[in-house]
Amino acid sequence: MSVSSQSHSVHMAEALSLARRGLTTTTPNPAVGCVLVRDGRVIGSGWHRAAGEPHAEINALRDAVDASGGDINDPAARRGACEGADCYVTLEPCSHTGRTGPCAQALVEAGIVRVIYAMEDPNPEVSGAGFALLREAGIEVIGPVLEDEALALNRGFVKRMTRGLPLVSCKMAMSLDGRTAMASGESRWVTGRRAREDVQRLRAASCAIVTGVDTVLLDDASLTVRAEDWPEAPAQEQIRQPLRVVLDTTGRLPPDGALFQTPSPILLVHTREVDTAGWPEHVEHIVLPEREGGVNPYALLRELGKRGCNRVLVESGAKVAGSFLRMGMLDEMIIYMAPKLMGNRARGLFELPVDAMAGQLPLKITDMRAVGQDWRITAVPDFDS
Amino acid sequence: MSVSSQSHSVHMAEALSLARRGLTTTTPNPAVGCVLVRDGRVIGSGWHRAAGEPHAEINALRDAVDASGGDINDPAARRGACEGADCYVTLEPCSHTGRTGPCAQALVEAGIVRVIYAMEDPNPEVSGAGFALLREAGIEVIGPVLEDEALALNRGFVKRMTRGLPLVSCKMAMSLDGRTAMASGESRWVTGRRAREDVQRLRAASCAIVTGVDTVLLDDASLTVRAEDWPEAPAQEQIRQPLRVVLDTTGRLPPDGALFQTPSPILLVHTREVDTAGWPEHVEHIVLPEREGGVNPYALLRELGKRGCNRVLVESGAKVAGSFLRMGMLDEMIIYMAPKLMGNRARGLFELPVDAMAGQLPLKITDMRAVGQDWRITAVPDFDS
Repeated sequence: MSVSSQSHSVHMAEALSLARRGLTTTTPNPAVGCVLVRDGRVIGSGWHRAAGEPHAEINALRDAVDASGGDINDPAARRGACEGADCYVTLEPCSHTGRTGPCAQALVEAGIVRVIYAMEDPNPEVSGAGFALLREAGIEVIGPVLEDEALALNRGFVKRMTRGLPLVSCKMAMSLDGRTAMASGESRWVTGRRAREDVQRLRAASCAIVTGVDTVLLDDASLTVRAEDWPEAPAQEQIRQPLRVVLDTTGRLPPDGALFQTPSPILLVHTREVDTAGWPEHVEHIVLPEREGGVNPYALLRELGKRGCNRVLVESGAKVAGSFLRMGMLDEMIIYMAPKLMGNRARGLFELPVDAMAGQLPLKITDMRAVGQDWRITAVPDFDS
Repeated sequence: MSVSSQSHSVHMAEALSLARRGLTTTTPNPAVGCVLVRDGRVIGSGWHRAAGEPHAEINALRDAVDASGGDINDPAARRGACEGADCYVTLEPCSHTGRTGPCAQALVEAGIVRVIYAMEDPNPEVSGAGFALLREAGIEVIGPVLEDEALALNRGFVKRMTRGLPLVSCKMAMSLDGRTAMASGESRWVTGRRAREDVQRLRAASCAIVTGVDTVLLDDASLTVRAEDWPEAPAQEQIRQPLRVVLDTTGRLPPDGALFQTPSPILLVHTREVDTAGWPEHVEHIVLPEREGGVNPYALLRELGKRGCNRVLVESGAKVAGSFLRMGMLDEMIIYMAPKLMGNRARGLFELPVDAMAGQLPLKITDMRAVGQDWRITAVPDFDS
C-alpha cells in the first residue's frame, strides 16, 4: 500500500467513525461521515445526525469555516477556509436538492480539489450523479476506499435502495438447550441484565420492531427503547423510537396494555378489516395479504420498505419468527444464549417443519461473543452450503 | 514470587506437561510427570504411561541413570547419577508396594535431597504416607506447587478417590436451535468432521462410554476410538479402548450390530435378569437397580467407580442424558453446536421436565471455542446461582 493510499484509509476510517455516531438517528437516511484535509491536516469534520438536518459534508464545511473564524453563510469565507482541501466522505455526495441542497455543489463552491469516497450511492436512480457533478467541475474523484466497511455500516439502507426491502434481523433469547419460554409462555427472564441492555442497542439501531400479537398479550411488552436500560443512551427524549409493528391477524389486541401507553407510533397489521373505532391516534391499522394463517412477511417488508425502514428487528415467538424464516426473509439472527437448561417441554426457537436431515437449514455463524454471563451468536443463512 | 519459587513453577510446569502425555492411557492410575534437577539443570525426566508399567519417578530416575551411562539395576549407579538432585513430581510419591515398588523409597535410595510436589495423593487412606517416608529419610518436601493445574489434570482420579464416583461428562451434538436429531431419530450428521474428530479425543480420555439402547439401535454405533478419525492418534493397536456401557434395561439389544463386531469389552446393564446365553465373550451382563423406568445412574456410577473408571463419557439421547442430569450426576456438558437449524419438530437435548422459569437449571459456561465450523461449549451445573 502506498503512503498515499494509506493516508486515504486513515482519513476514511475517521470519516467512518464519525458516520457511526448517526447510526441510531439518521433513518431513513444513511449514516455518513466526512473529513476535510488540507496539507495533511484535518481542517474540518462532520456527520449526518438526522433526516432534515445538514448532511455530513455540510457539517464538515461548517466546521472548517467555524475553525477559520469565518461566517458559514459567506461564500468567500467558505472558499477561504476550504479551498484546495481534500474531502473524505463515506458516501457519494448527493446531487439533488432535497431538504438540504446538493452537497456535491457545496463542495465545488467551497473549492474542494479532491473527493475520496468509500461507497457510491446505492440508489440505482441517482448513483454516479454526484460524482459526475464533481468531475464536471474539475474535482478529482477517488475511490472506493474502505468500501466493505462503508457497506456494512449502511447495510439496511443499501438493501432498501437496491431491493426495496429493509434488512431484517431476528433477535431471540434462548437457553443453552434452545428454549425461549416455558410451555406456558413464561419467559422472564431467559437472559441476564447485560444481554437485555444489548437488546436496547439493537432496538435503537432499528427503524421498526416487528412482533406477534401473542408476544404482546403474554409479555405486556412496550417494545420501546428505554434509556434506563441502555448504559450509553442519550437522554430519553433524544432517542428515536422505532416504529412498533404488531402482527394482529384477526384483531385480537385490546386497546389497553403497556404497548399503547407510550406515545411512539404503532402499526397494527391485520389480514382482514377490523373495527378501528376508539383507538388512540398514534395507532395505525393496515390490512395486508395473508400467508399460512399469518401476515405475509414479504408484503409486510415491502410496506415497511416503502415507509423508509432500513432495518427491521423481529422480536417474536417461534411462530412469527418461523414465518419469516420459512419465506427466506431473515437476513440475520441475533441469538442470546443463556447458560441454563429450560428443558424439553419449553418452547423452541423457530417454527420450522423439518423431518429429515436433508431439510436442515444451514447457517453461518459470523460473530460469537460473551455479553455478561450470556453469549451472543450472530448467524446468517448460508446459501453456499 | 521469589526466583526459587519461580523455578519451582517452571520445572513443575514441565512435569505437568509430561504427565499430560499419559492422559489417555494411565487409567485407572492418575497421569503423573516427574523432572529431576541438579544444579539448575534437568538431569532426567519421566511420566507414567500405563498401569503395571513404571511410575513417573522411576522413569525419571532411569532417564538420569541412562544419561550418566550407568546401569539402572545398580544402586551405586543410581546414586551416582541422582545424588543431591531435586525431584519435581506432580503427585505425592507412593509409599506402598504395588506392581512397581514404592517410589518414595526409590527416591530416598537414589539420594534425592528435595521433593517438590504439585498435589497430595487424593486417596484419603494413603495420603501423606509418601511424604512421611521421605521426611523420615531426611528429604525436604515442598509443595503444593501448581496444585490447581495438577488437580485439573486428574479430576476424574481425584473424584473417584475421594467420592468413589467417576467424573461424568455428557457429550452432545446439537443444532443452533438445540436439536440433536430428527423426530425419526435420524442424526447423521449434526456436526462437521472436525467436531467428530474432537469427540474421538474425548472418548480416548474416557474410561467408559455410556449410552442407551435406543442410540445403539438407531445409529448402529460402535462407540470405539477410531485412529482414522483422530488426527494425532497413536497406532490403532496402541489405543486404549474405553469400556462400552449400554443401558439396556429390559434386554432389547440383539447380539449382532456394529457394537459387538469390535473386540473391546462391553457392559450391558439391565434392571432385571436377561438370558445371556449365546453372547460373545467380551460382552458382560449386569443387573442394577431401576429408577424412573431406566437404570439408576448413581448405581451405575458406583459400579463403574468400583471398576476403576476415573472418567465416564455419556453419549446418548435426551432420555439417558436427562436421567443423569435430573439425578445431579453430570459434572460437565460438552456440547458441539452446529451452525444450522433443525426445526422444532426435531429432538431436544435433555429430557428435563420444567414448567416454570423458577425450575430452570443454571449452568456456568467454562469454555467456548470454534471447532471447524462448529462451536464447542463446555458447561457445568452452577450450584451458586
